Amino acid sequence: MTDTNTAIHEDGSLERLTIDTIRTLSMDAVQKANSGHPGTPMALAPVGYTLWSQFLRYDPAKPDWPNRDRFVLSVGHASMLLYSLIHLAGIEEIDADGNKTGRPALSLDDLKGFRQLSSRTPGHPEFRHTTGVETTTGPLGAGCSNSVGMAIAERWLAARYNRPEFTLFDHDVYTLCGDGDMMEGVAAEAASLAGHLKLSNLCWIYDSNHISIEGGTDLAFDEDVGLRFQAYGWNVIHLDDANDTKAFAKAIETFKATDDKPTFIVVHSVIGWGSPKAGSEKAHGEPLGVDNVRATKKAYGWPEDKDFYIPEGVAEHFHDAIAGRGGALREEWEATFARYREANPELGAELALMLKDELPEGWDADIPDFPADEKGMASRDSGGKVLNALAKRVPWLIGGSADLSPSTKTDIKGAPSFEANNYGGQNFHFGVREHGMGGVVNGMTLSHVRGYGSTFLVFADYMRAPIRLSAIMELASVWVFTHDSIGVGEDGPTHQPIEHLATLRAIPGLDTIRPGDANEVAYSWRAALEDASRPTALIFSRQALPTLDRSKYASAEGTLKGGYVLADCEGTPEVILIATGSELSLVVQAHEKLSADGIKSRVVSMPSWYRYELQSEDYKESVLPSSVPSRLAVEQAGEMGWHRYVGLKGRTITMSTFGASAPISKLQDKYGFTLDNVVKVAREMLESNNG
Amino acid sequence: MTDTNTAIHEDGSLERLTIDTIRTLSMDAVQKANSGHPGTPMALAPVGYTLWSQFLRYDPAKPDWPNRDRFVLSVGHASMLLYSLIHLAGIEEIDADGNKTGRPALSLDDLKGFRQLSSRTPGHPEFRHTTGVETTTGPLGAGCSNSVGMAIAERWLAARYNRPEFTLFDHDVYTLCGDGDMMEGVAAEAASLAGHLKLSNLCWIYDSNHISIEGGTDLAFDEDVGLRFQAYGWNVIHLDDANDTKAFAKAIETFKATDDKPTFIVVHSVIGWGSPKAGSEKAHGEPLGVDNVRATKKAYGWPEDKDFYIPEGVAEHFHDAIAGRGGALREEWEATFARYREANPELGAELALMLKDELPEGWDADIPDFPADEKGMASRDSGGKVLNALAKRVPWLIGGSADLSPSTKTDIKGAPSFEANNYGGQNFHFGVREHGMGGVVNGMTLSHVRGYGSTFLVFADYMRAPIRLSAIMELASVWVFTHDSIGVGEDGPTHQPIEHLATLRAIPGLDTIRPGDANEVAYSWRAALEDASRPTALIFSRQALPTLDRSKYASAEGTLKGGYVLADCEGTPEVILIATGSELSLVVQAHEKLSADGIKSRVVSMPSWYRYELQSEDYKESVLPSSVPSRLAVEQAGEMGWHRYVGLKGRTITMSTFGASAPISKLQDKYGFTLDNVVKVAREMLESNNG
Repeated sequence: MTDTNTAIHEDGSLERLTIDTIRTLSMDAVQKANSGHPGTPMALAPVGYTLWSQFLRYDPAKPDWPNRDRFVLSVGHASMLLYSLIHLAGIEEIDADGNKTGRPALSLDDLKGFRQLSSRTPGHPEFRHTTGVETTTGPLGAGCSNSVGMAIAERWLAARYNRPEFTLFDHDVYTLCGDGDMMEGVAAEAASLAGHLKLSNLCWIYDSNHISIEGGTDLAFDEDVGLRFQAYGWNVIHLDDANDTKAFAKAIETFKATDDKPTFIVVHSVIGWGSPKAGSEKAHGEPLGVDNVRATKKAYGWPEDKDFYIPEGVAEHFHDAIAGRGGALREEWEATFARYREANPELGAELALMLKDELPEGWDADIPDFPADEKGMASRDSGGKVLNALAKRVPWLIGGSADLSPSTKTDIKGAPSFEANNYGGQNFHFGVREHGMGGVVNGMTLSHVRGYGSTFLVFADYMRAPIRLSAIMELASVWVFTHDSIGVGEDGPTHQPIEHLATLRAIPGLDTIRPGDANEVAYSWRAALEDASRPTALIFSRQALPTLDRSKYASAEGTLKGGYVLADCEGTPEVILIATGSELSLVVQAHEKLSADGIKSRVVSMPSWYRYELQSEDYKESVLPSSVPSRLAVEQAGEMGWHRYVGLKGRTITMSTFGASAPISKLQDKYGFTLDNVVKVAREMLESNNG
Repeated sequence: MTDTNTAIHEDGSLERLTIDTIRTLSMDAVQKANSGHPGTPMALAPVGYTLWSQFLRYDPAKPDWPNRDRFVLSVGHASMLLYSLIHLAGIEEIDADGNKTGRPALSLDDLKGFRQLSSRTPGHPEFRHTTGVETTTGPLGAGCSNSVGMAIAERWLAARYNRPEFTLFDHDVYTLCGDGDMMEGVAAEAASLAGHLKLSNLCWIYDSNHISIEGGTDLAFDEDVGLRFQAYGWNVIHLDDANDTKAFAKAIETFKATDDKPTFIVVHSVIGWGSPKAGSEKAHGEPLGVDNVRATKKAYGWPEDKDFYIPEGVAEHFHDAIAGRGGALREEWEATFARYREANPELGAELALMLKDELPEGWDADIPDFPADEKGMASRDSGGKVLNALAKRVPWLIGGSADLSPSTKTDIKGAPSFEANNYGGQNFHFGVREHGMGGVVNGMTLSHVRGYGSTFLVFADYMRAPIRLSAIMELASVWVFTHDSIGVGEDGPTHQPIEHLATLRAIPGLDTIRPGDANEVAYSWRAALEDASRPTALIFSRQALPTLDRSKYASAEGTLKGGYVLADCEGTPEVILIATGSELSLVVQAHEKLSADGIKSRVVSMPSWYRYELQSEDYKESVLPSSVPSRLAVEQAGEMGWHRYVGLKGRTITMSTFGASAPISKLQDKYGFTLDNVVKVAREMLESNNG
């Protein structure tokens, strides 16, 4: 036990009781689950208490109030801190449509079900799963980067919707982060961007406890974090003791008074405060143990025998402090918004629609219908055209690139950049920070704008974690990945994706679409926009693709089904050619050659495995009849996963190695993506299966 | 053209001629290829020239001299800078065994073949492909992190092998990096670690040209980078003008005199220096254009009509400066090493072996043979035991964890930590920096130690880029990933890998092994060690796995073949059960149940798809006979890729969603990883295929 233990120990106030309630609830839940992280909730209870009770603008009765302050627990392993706060604050549960269920977000029984199957209190906080959780955290640095996106969204919403007489958006974003977050590069990327953008509505509270899982942070981490944040352009405040709630409150006041930069508060804390394991890595990721729980309660002056004990008055005190302030503000906001809608009916309707994750009428009216064109265009180019057609109609479709927009073609033409001097801009410059971009876009999407981020497909590797989190959270983030194959050409193997299609397709709930021509591109973007309950990865080529003559072939609308028969023969085909993206026109040529040679073939375009798998068995049987074993898949990517469609008797023309640096046509020859080779392999397969 | 153009323009010295030769070779090669990045080589030619000619300890006649200084071009897109330096320095080509081929590493014709198929001059520098390239770069931040690993390796080699009278290792590592590197989180992670470790043998030269692809860096990046590096504990030097070779030389001298921290030199440069596009993003990633090339040559006082022109005396001057210093040092080193081997025969032999990427006799003598045990042990635990058995015999097997060693069990017991006060330590604390760890381990492995890095499998997402690069470079890095499935339990979906096995298996050339019991673990580590020409990902469980009774089942040696028949029936099986890792014992139970029920079944253990695919068709047919369509794969992971083995008539019991937070047994019930369900699905499949 450390000697800082006495700081708030003998003060019998409701403040102390509430803080110790947060601590003991957290300890008890971890102990009961026999699994979890007690130390950080115990250390940060005073911070959580003070922030929520004195500052957070939040109405427990209306947890989806759009202008609420956001509280992000980037230290997701400290979930019991958040769950305790949610419970004591009396947040009311809402369902996916924002309707109240009539029960608390978290009852005391929910806390007792910590980390159990189907409980509302999973090991790490999960957005959508528990009301009051603003984002799913746990993977370190993720919450930090999300919070930058939330702060960006607030600035953008304020710039677009506020009017001199109506302030609809002026909320703040608070993030609780730890040493792990500070070591992760993604948080560094996001912090640098936040400093650049002068996000004065953003406050990170850094729990500096000098402990990591392997031991003291001096094993691996002794940089001057505060100085680093100064270098990023943040306002940096140091606090000596996490238990000093007055000093912490003063720091938050400084944050609120700062209007030209984000704020970084370094709080020195003692992990597992008050327990025999205080200050040790042993207080981090395992229950304290029954005896230590008792000893800790004794140190707090707590009844040692009572579990999940909440002293009288504590919940009321905490709830009233938050609801009093937040409820009044929320009601005032609703009145303001009602007057706003009268004064600004169009903008008001737009905002209401946006907040419901819906799209305006006619949102798709300008999506181009691309005429047949043998020369065609790169899908990154058609993608840019479709994006621009959508952005005109859906003004909250905003995003940008990790410093590659001239290549990914994701700029909204004529629109200004989102910068510190223009928070209404629609084009975002995320810098060469793919991982940060991913987390930021998720944070933006969490605030109901439709965010997108783009880079080369090969660099999807840098941002796997936020892509995965967008799928876990069922966010509508759109990931635009161009330069999608060896078609990259001269930049060589480090820049040529091979395994990346498979690795995106492997993420549950992510719709990965690789359209085969400009009209499939149009349907791909449509797919990404029209359903706000899932993320989409759009995979575009660097090189030109012919625009297919849809009077001759099936409509590109089949894209929405994931896979469809593009071209066919009379009767049952002998061979089915399956392709996506830039290989679609190649198999169409092969189909025509085979037909001319008297071989009956079918072409299946399969831009999205995800969508195809959502179709009925009948539909799938109609596209890929089980009676046809000779199936050839052609894709300039690794083979992984294609056997699901070609089976053991089918073949693939895919990449089994990394690529090489050369002009594209040389690479296509080298790796067999030629008409001659496709026809040859199809014939070989047929002979082998008939032989 | 900027006015700094005159700084070295009118000085007719060999220095200026050589610098302008580097510039014009780079310009010409990009122009001829009609593809590439001319601007940075032109800006940094004075830096490259000065560093190589005045400082780099390198013998062009012996490019694999172990104590050579390392030059890492983290700005890999500026490959023509490196290729020009290699050519002018007259580096001699060596093959994979270190034998001279008798030709230059890069001839003038090679430069003319820039970015063409099979040339030695691909778009980004590729290790193994071009002599003189120390690591494959291009993905930003990668070279920076590799260089930290190289500096670590040097410190470790010095600590282990130097003796008071024999200095075998005292080389430096120089890294050329740019704004893109500085924005990437991986470089931040590596820099923080380098500062912590006080790597005074490391010098990063930061080309601050204020230009990014989208435009000026003020669009997204205006932090104080120098101040940030001070926060990391680096010595920071600012230079106003990249053309001021004297100031640069002085900065390098300061670096060499600094013995307690790494050095960061901020060099302000003008991209595309001397060209009409100077100072613009248009000089970054495309040829200057024929007219601009001529105008630039004119500005340099160069013959405008000559391409790939090398003035007389330039190559000699540059080569002699480097070879004079480096050759003498290298000869002296060889003499020292000869005396060393006499004085320290054991250590000398060890070092010689290590430098050849070979293993000592008896390296595998202590690998345990685990007795059958129904309770068994987690594969992370058996993995730790095998690692420890190997580390005793292979002292240069060194590595650690991204702050998870108590969980990944990768500590070498009793060995000290690698820290600034003990560079001989074997246990590395990489901090919560997975991406940085990946790059650092690759850098270590590039210096011939056998490096490993560990974290939870789900966090492999954070380090995809270096894993991929280890495969591209054919490095022997070992990636240890534990907590390999929903078996993680209560930590929930953010911590439970689903798609990660597929995403690793999809990387060409990476051997991903998920062993099914302790003896398969032993063979997995053996596989990782015995072949130094490829990386390995070892996938271990958190939870205990029974150790199979190998007197009853086939030997675990089958692990080396990737897949093997573990348990069988008489005659042809009706059903084949395939599994990896923690599901292996489950399908063994199902096999026994089915056998008892009179159904003939076979169990195939398939720990490594990579190795299995290297086997002969006959062998594969013997394991998975094509006459048996009823195949059931069971794996607590996504389904992606399994149809390659089960085909269209087989089935899988795999994960189609993210997991959940609950104790493991609840999750196994929920997702069907139970004996009853395996038997049920096997029977259903049989009926369906026989029906």
